Amino acid sequence: MAHVFQFAERDPSMTAEQAKQQLDELRHGLLLSQYERLQKADQTLLIVVAGMDGVGKGSAINTLNTWLDPRHVHTLAFGELTEEQAMRPAMWRYWNALPAKGQTGLVFGSWYAALMHELERKKPDPAKVDLYTHLINRFEAHLAYQGVQVLKLWFHLSAQAQSTRCAALLANPDTAWRVSDADLKVHKKFKRLRKAGLETIALSHRQHAPWVVIPSADEHLRDVSVARAVLQAMRQPILPSQVVEPQPFPVSLRQPPSSLLKPPHFAKATDYDAELLHWQGRLSRAVRSKAFRNRSMALVFEGQDAAGKGGTIRRLTAALDVRNYDIHPISAPDSVERTRPYLWRFWRKLPRYGEIAIFDRSWYGRVLVERVERLTTPAHWRRAYDEINGFEAQLAANGTVVLKFWLSVSKEEQLKRFQERENSPFKAYKITDDDWRNRAKWTAYRRAAQDMFAQTDTETAPWHIVPSDDKKTARLHVLKTVVQALEALDKTTLELVEPALQQQVNDQV
Amino acid sequence: MAHVFQFAERDPSMTAEQAKQQLDELRHGLLLSQYERLQKADQTLLIVVAGMDGVGKGSAINTLNTWLDPRHVHTLAFGELTEEQAMRPAMWRYWNALPAKGQTGLVFGSWYAALMHELERKKPDPAKVDLYTHLINRFEAHLAYQGVQVLKLWFHLSAQAQSTRCAALLANPDTAWRVSDADLKVHKKFKRLRKAGLETIALSHRQHAPWVVIPSADEHLRDVSVARAVLQAMRQPILPSQVVEPQPFPVSLRQPPSSLLKPPHFAKATDYDAELLHWQGRLSRAVRSKAFRNRSMALVFEGQDAAGKGGTIRRLTAALDVRNYDIHPISAPDSVERTRPYLWRFWRKLPRYGEIAIFDRSWYGRVLVERVERLTTPAHWRRAYDEINGFEAQLAANGTVVLKFWLSVSKEEQLKRFQERENSPFKAYKITDDDWRNRAKWTAYRRAAQDMFAQTDTETAPWHIVPSDDKKTARLHVLKTVVQALEALDKTTLELVEPALQQQVNDQV
Repeated sequence: MAHVFQFAERDPSMTAEQAKQQLDELRHGLLLSQYERLQKADQTLLIVVAGMDGVGKGSAINTLNTWLDPRHVHTLAFGELTEEQAMRPAMWRYWNALPAKGQTGLVFGSWYAALMHELERKKPDPAKVDLYTHLINRFEAHLAYQGVQVLKLWFHLSAQAQSTRCAALLANPDTAWRVSDADLKVHKKFKRLRKAGLETIALSHRQHAPWVVIPSADEHLRDVSVARAVLQAMRQPILPSQVVEPQPFPVSLRQPPSSLLKPPHFAKATDYDAELLHWQGRLSRAVRSKAFRNRSMALVFEGQDAAGKGGTIRRLTAALDVRNYDIHPISAPDSVERTRPYLWRFWRKLPRYGEIAIFDRSWYGRVLVERVERLTTPAHWRRAYDEINGFEAQLAANGTVVLKFWLSVSKEEQLKRFQERENSPFKAYKITDDDWRNRAKWTAYRRAAQDMFAQTDTETAPWHIVPSDDKKTARLHVLKTVVQALEALDKTTLELVEPALQQQVNDQV
Repeated sequence: MAHVFQFAERDPSMTAEQAKQQLDELRHGLLLSQYERLQKADQTLLIVVAGMDGVGKGSAINTLNTWLDPRHVHTLAFGELTEEQAMRPAMWRYWNALPAKGQTGLVFGSWYAALMHELERKKPDPAKVDLYTHLINRFEAHLAYQGVQVLKLWFHLSAQAQSTRCAALLANPDTAWRVSDADLKVHKKFKRLRKAGLETIALSHRQHAPWVVIPSADEHLRDVSVARAVLQAMRQPILPSQVVEPQPFPVSLRQPPSSLLKPPHFAKATDYDAELLHWQGRLSRAVRSKAFRNRSMALVFEGQDAAGKGGTIRRLTAALDVRNYDIHPISAPDSVERTRPYLWRFWRKLPRYGEIAIFDRSWYGRVLVERVERLTTPAHWRRAYDEINGFEAQLAANGTVVLKFWLSVSKEEQLKRFQERENSPFKAYKITDDDWRNRAKWTAYRRAAQDMFAQTDTETAPWHIVPSDDKKTARLHVLKTVVQALEALDKTTLELVEPALQQQVNDQV
């Protein structure tokens, strides 16, 4: 039966002259396309470089680099995990490295490393293969929906040609350094690696993120093939309609989900000052506990304007060492953030182990303000529920405790607070025309919030609705919830899926 | 004799009512000033928080945070070194964290930690004290010249008041957590800490970066004092003319310095291909040597347009693993970079150990294009020689090998290459009106280059002038120079000043 390696394994070739002829035209097209994309600046192109060792990937990419304007081509090379990377979900470093729209990234040691490593084992673990495949396909689909196009090049040749190539380089002392230990090991396990390659391609080839096999036995044909594949990708940006929808992230929603219609009732604090100190003391201890040293926390604060987010956050941070937390006030994305998928700026703010990241408004802006104010399309915000569930699940799997608070204020109390703010010389800055406009859309925001709870109130990253007309009670409730979540860490041992995945990556590269 | 702690050690106080009265006005002024600064966006304010433990620094700063619009206040807290930080010069993390113009940063665990730690010893090492003082004063002066204002708050009270404060908090189980071990130890060594504080202030108080002592025994007076100091700083941005010029960085210039007037002569390569492979092989091995694991390299490429920088860089990278280098093409600073001192974007690109950072144009733009095109003032570019010498010396002290190449092409050869580029469909993008304009200013650029060599050709970070009319000879010479510098690492043990400094910081925080 035909397979994707068939042509490459015949080790086809072309003459230098044939190649030159074709390359003249291809190079011209590549430069033109690169500039068109820079001008439009609506799509990033990521070129994933894959294939066995010792097939000439490096040289091919060096050549590609000489054809393009190198100021707009970024080499994204991933190797052993750094300390910072090891404290975050496996996909963190790939998200972090995304180039801006219009730019091109060459990816080495990509998000395929773990999957390929598993498939290369004598007996791959089907559960792991499923998990990695799922993560990869979701990642690439969500990127494609948001203007990041992924082209994947698989460099391949016959077993015979691979070992001939290495032997030829080794024979000359001045080229022997080009051959690594890994290159030499390929021959022995060629069959297994080949099978893993075929499976990787079968599992992750998508119209929006295609694999292209590059015949690599002959450098002329190899170069022409690379140029052709890249040019084709550059000329055909991905439309959202072409994206193959990924499987939704399997989440357990809480039943019934949190709802503004049935907010919980809290007894009013009888001795606020004493209770505040008590819970702050416990928070201070919990953060310094041994259990938290390999865990982190992300706190999300959402709610209507003037619901008391800032004041609540300050009651938390008063009990924390400044070195252990970061507050991220989230407003409209800035000019740099707008050149990346919307979750990018949140990925970049994920906490280290031992740290708490506090989001004063968050990635939920996508399904709240962006939806209500029509700053994005319905297709985008509808898809965001699933993107967010996947994002938070990756956080949780990495040992990050995710708690989400909706501070809920009544319409009357909000009006009172708006008026207070307008009349205070210290708070006037907190109230703008936007706040009044948002208030006029109270019902629309409420509906958006209800949908959000229905779709994202998960067991791993639950929503907490906190009635906040009484500020003190609300603050105590949030403090208590955070403390209890931290204290519970002592009693649970989370099976960290992600570090395992990361380890795989390390073994591989 | 009067000293700066005299007033604070009387533990002065004020009533809550007195404080409220003053604070109403101060807070109003703070908000107004903050918005004015945001609007103008020409100065960053850094507020350094210092003083003994257990004097209420944290509470005071929390309070300050409630007075300002928190969206534009950044807490910069530095603790134990992370792996990434430990691989860079000590000042790296402070440079990295600089907020944009218009913004305010609250700095905990600042660049004073190492100095204070040394001064607190029974017998401070005068050489270390000098070194740290010098680094600090240069850092703050260079920031001030470029619109980063530093205000330093020293929280202080009497020994008696400090221990009374701790005892009161400890007496209540719900506030006991506020007292750390460090707080309790203060009493015992109060005298020594106090002396260290006095000396720190004496060594680093500058008109452009003043220390203000905050009496901290009484929270009302403390808060009023903080508000007053911050407001005064916000209202009086620093003018370059007010900056106390720091001591120049002591560098050994090479004698005679490299000069375009006497470029070296290289024999033409007889067998380019073989030599190229040979030196690439040695480069490949040298980068993987044990000696390079705790070292890094920064390569600077400057020279006229079309001098062959790109081609030379590609001959280097062809021998390197993509995971071990980064190429940084440097052009005009972008909108984010323009909101920081000009060296900021280069600090952010410093290599990890084991890595090579390649700068295709560099920080020398300040004294080349910015000077010639009058993009900055003469005062700024004249000062830049010293700033750059200090920057490179910090790199070298941290184990980074710094090599600087000036690729020198003749005016005739440049014309030939420009014309070739214009006639090639693949190279036309490389030639713009700017290139022709620069060419018209050949003499001005040459003069700027000569001055640059005279001022920055140091033993620790030497310039190499590489005649480049013959591209191949130039490439081989650069390769060889890089290889020899790397191979020499095996034979030298650098005394790393900076890690020592960093360790001090760690001990302290």
